[in-house]
Amino acid sequence: MKFTASEIAALINGKVEGNPDIQIYKLSKIEQGEPGSITFLGNPKYTQYIYNTQASVVIVNDDFVPEQKLECTLIRVENAYNAFAMMLDAYNQIRQNKTGISKLAYIPETASIGANCYIAEFVSIGEHVEVGDQAKIYPGAVIGDNVSIGKGTIIYAGVKIYNDCSVGANCTLHAGVVIGADGFGFAPQSDNQYQKVAQIGNVIIEDNVEIGANTTIDRATLGSTIIRKGAKIDNLIQIAHNVEIGENTVIAAQTGIAGSAKIGRNCMIAGQVGIIGHLEIGDNVKIAAQSGISTTVPADSIIMGSPAFDISAYRKSYVYFRNLPKLVDRLNQLEKKDVNK
Amino acid sequence: MKFTASEIAALINGKVEGNPDIQIYKLSKIEQGEPGSITFLGNPKYTQYIYNTQASVVIVNDDFVPEQKLECTLIRVENAYNAFAMMLDAYNQIRQNKTGISKLAYIPETASIGANCYIAEFVSIGEHVEVGDQAKIYPGAVIGDNVSIGKGTIIYAGVKIYNDCSVGANCTLHAGVVIGADGFGFAPQSDNQYQKVAQIGNVIIEDNVEIGANTTIDRATLGSTIIRKGAKIDNLIQIAHNVEIGENTVIAAQTGIAGSAKIGRNCMIAGQVGIIGHLEIGDNVKIAAQSGISTTVPADSIIMGSPAFDISAYRKSYVYFRNLPKLVDRLNQLEKKDVNK
Amino acid sequence: MKFTASEIAALINGKVEGNPDIQIYKLSKIEQGEPGSITFLGNPKYTQYIYNTQASVVIVNDDFVPEQKLECTLIRVENAYNAFAMMLDAYNQIRQNKTGISKLAYIPETASIGANCYIAEFVSIGEHVEVGDQAKIYPGAVIGDNVSIGKGTIIYAGVKIYNDCSVGANCTLHAGVVIGADGFGFAPQSDNQYQKVAQIGNVIIEDNVEIGANTTIDRATLGSTIIRKGAKIDNLIQIAHNVEIGENTVIAAQTGIAGSAKIGRNCMIAGQVGIIGHLEIGDNVKIAAQSGISTTVPADSIIMGSPAFDISAYRKSYVYFRNLPKLVDRLNQLEKKDVNK
Repeated sequence: MKFTASEIAALINGKVEGNPDIQIYKLSKIEQGEPGSITFLGNPKYTQYIYNTQASVVIVNDDFVPEQKLECTLIRVENAYNAFAMMLDAYNQIRQNKTGISKLAYIPETASIGANCYIAEFVSIGEHVEVGDQAKIYPGAVIGDNVSIGKGTIIYAGVKIYNDCSVGANCTLHAGVVIGADGFGFAPQSDNQYQKVAQIGNVIIEDNVEIGANTTIDRATLGSTIIRKGAKIDNLIQIAHNVEIGENTVIAAQTGIAGSAKIGRNCMIAGQVGIIGHLEIGDNVKIAAQSGISTTVPADSIIMGSPAFDISAYRKSYVYFRNLPKLVDRLNQLEKKDVNK
Repeated sequence: MKFTASEIAALINGKVEGNPDIQIYKLSKIEQGEPGSITFLGNPKYTQYIYNTQASVVIVNDDFVPEQKLECTLIRVENAYNAFAMMLDAYNQIRQNKTGISKLAYIPETASIGANCYIAEFVSIGEHVEVGDQAKIYPGAVIGDNVSIGKGTIIYAGVKIYNDCSVGANCTLHAGVVIGADGFGFAPQSDNQYQKVAQIGNVIIEDNVEIGANTTIDRATLGSTIIRKGAKIDNLIQIAHNVEIGENTVIAAQTGIAGSAKIGRNCMIAGQVGIIGHLEIGDNVKIAAQSGISTTVPADSIIMGSPAFDISAYRKSYVYFRNLPKLVDRLNQLEKKDVNK
Repeated sequence: MKFTASEIAALINGKVEGNPDIQIYKLSKIEQGEPGSITFLGNPKYTQYIYNTQASVVIVNDDFVPEQKLECTLIRVENAYNAFAMMLDAYNQIRQNKTGISKLAYIPETASIGANCYIAEFVSIGEHVEVGDQAKIYPGAVIGDNVSIGKGTIIYAGVKIYNDCSVGANCTLHAGVVIGADGFGFAPQSDNQYQKVAQIGNVIIEDNVEIGANTTIDRATLGSTIIRKGAKIDNLIQIAHNVEIGENTVIAAQTGIAGSAKIGRNCMIAGQVGIIGHLEIGDNVKIAAQSGISTTVPADSIIMGSPAFDISAYRKSYVYFRNLPKLVDRLNQLEKKDVNK
């Protein structure tokens, strides 16, 4: 695919300064630009690179004033970062425009597939499944019975969705995600064996949710495990049975959330955090990486540690932890003086 | 599927109090009951909900004495929780009664498949594989050469089992599980490169084991990685080469166990625990979430921390850790007084 | 497969001492030897076992001098451990000699497949894919458009590689690995929603890299996420967008590395480590298990803790942490005396 600077300027609502006919066929970082590539200058920290970049075109903010001579063509826009993201997005959509239903997919008669879908090779669709218009299901994905998948949702290769779960519109589930496996519920018996507690609920994923590769979200024992709209969930995360994740909450990789925990809206949970079951995390809570949460957390808290508490208090304690050998020396000194008195 | 209250009472050995012909077609929590649903009252904490529940039928303990008028029909049993679990289980078995061998599965002539099995679309079976009666293998699962799978075992979608491994009877392997990938063994060379050490052992999973979604259990270098009968292993767990997990041990999500560690029976290991290699954990050990185990642990220990030690000692130390700024203030005070003397 | 002691001696360049015609058909550990098995004595700690082992043949170092009578046949070599590893490797290659292209694989006309490859059932190959000679792709793997796979590389069952990624020669990707899923990039909007930032870079994996089961390596936003040659990466690891892992660096299971972190050469990173984004780890750095890295780390450091610092300083502080109750007692004593003066 090739575009001219003026074609791109039209797409992102910008003004060309330089050669409007220069051809662009790839994207680059400003510090690694090559002839034929387009890049952008958003962060002023990178301004130095614009004077030497080999990129053919650089998207800049309206108010950018060069301090040296420029070799590259500029496209001026209101917000260079947003314009670049918009352009990436357009490029991405062109790249991912697969449609059509493979003859090597398995689709039973009771399933209903919307218009303009992509269903790839070796996809297995269950009975009574409903797939919305423009949805895309990549090779090897397995969709259980009675599952519904919303309009425009992308299910990447090898995703497994168990029976009775539902996925909203405009969601993205990355490769290897498992939705609706049994919650981890076992009743201890008198002989030390465990009796499985049947897990007959489901998982409900609302609209605009993104779920990272190999993340697992278990079905509820009864009722539903729920991921509210707009939540963004990274790779290799564990979400146990009957958990609820609030709207627009963001969770980084390898975090684990135990059964029946309820997480508020607009939270930011960093990587490798562990949250125990049957507690509530309020809205707008921020949790530092590797923290362990063992109690209910009020809204707007920022916490760290395992078990976690207020982040600035944690940091103070940790500084003293690092200095414990010195503190003990001071204690030794005092005791010595005390004895000598 | 519809059932009447009296049909369900017969199944769970209970007595109907109210309308024996009322129809039930779904399950609910007591606080979220709907007409047509059945629920139970086990925990007295929830007693308040029974007076307003919309559920048509509630299973209660024999000795339940209502303090207000009830709208719902009751089924009285010895233990309401157990009866409800029994009913879920029965429902679950009806729901999962798939049988038959798909024409879209790949099964070589050297493989032997038992009676009444379910082998789904795009399942790949290796040479000389033996699958026991009533086993179920869901779409896209891949079974390597010489693998044996016991009677009644369920292998969910996209499970991968490498050559030469064996899985016992009545096991459940959830979607995305990987059994028998190479152990992580490399011999450092003088030029900083690593030479792979061939991993030619296998994995043996005994009867009644459950393994959660996307968990990985590596094959032994030599000999076997062994999961003893009745062990319950949650999602996203890493079990390295030559590990042995004892009978009826329960391990929560995202825990990792390094090579050649030996874990006893009836242990309870919480989530995100790390256990280093070549050590022994005794029987009945309990390990708190996010702990790191770096030494052998005697039977019956309850431990926490990274590195872990006795849980009540850990908690005491952690309280003082939180109070370190105050302790340092006290130390400062003492020193000041000391200087002033 | 059966071999005689003299055939094995020829393979590993050793000298037989005992019965050269004794038949070997399996491998064992020295402490668990059985008639018909071969084992080795590398670590002197295990010398005691050689006098009672039931193994038929034991590989020993040239300089081994028995102190009791031996029942077994010996093969003397320069380095018993290396010789045994070499033998395992030969055995492993015989075991994994699958070739041929299954009629049940999906391979479009634009793809190019090298000589002597193995492409199994239900493998899905994308447009314009290039697969090198002797590469093996196991059942259910999904290879996206424009992917290249080097000579002799093994892609195990159910691996998913997204569009535009490249994998070098002699690599091994274990079952369930996901290469090239979108990086976790979202721009916060004023209404608390997040706008996805398109991830249009790729992943480049150089030669001789091994990647463990269910590990995920995200594609770069722009440019490439890079795994340099000889790196060894264990199971269930998360490597985020635009990360670079240096040559011959080894990373143990369940570690997570956030976006744009750059890891040096010859590092050893233990299990469950978390590394935050946009920082550099120098060459030859060693990081203890469960550590959290929040700042740039100079070459040759050995660190521990969360946040991590020098390992011996950490251990000292942790000893005092364990003893905090005693330290507080001493502080109490001093204060009491102080008051009493």
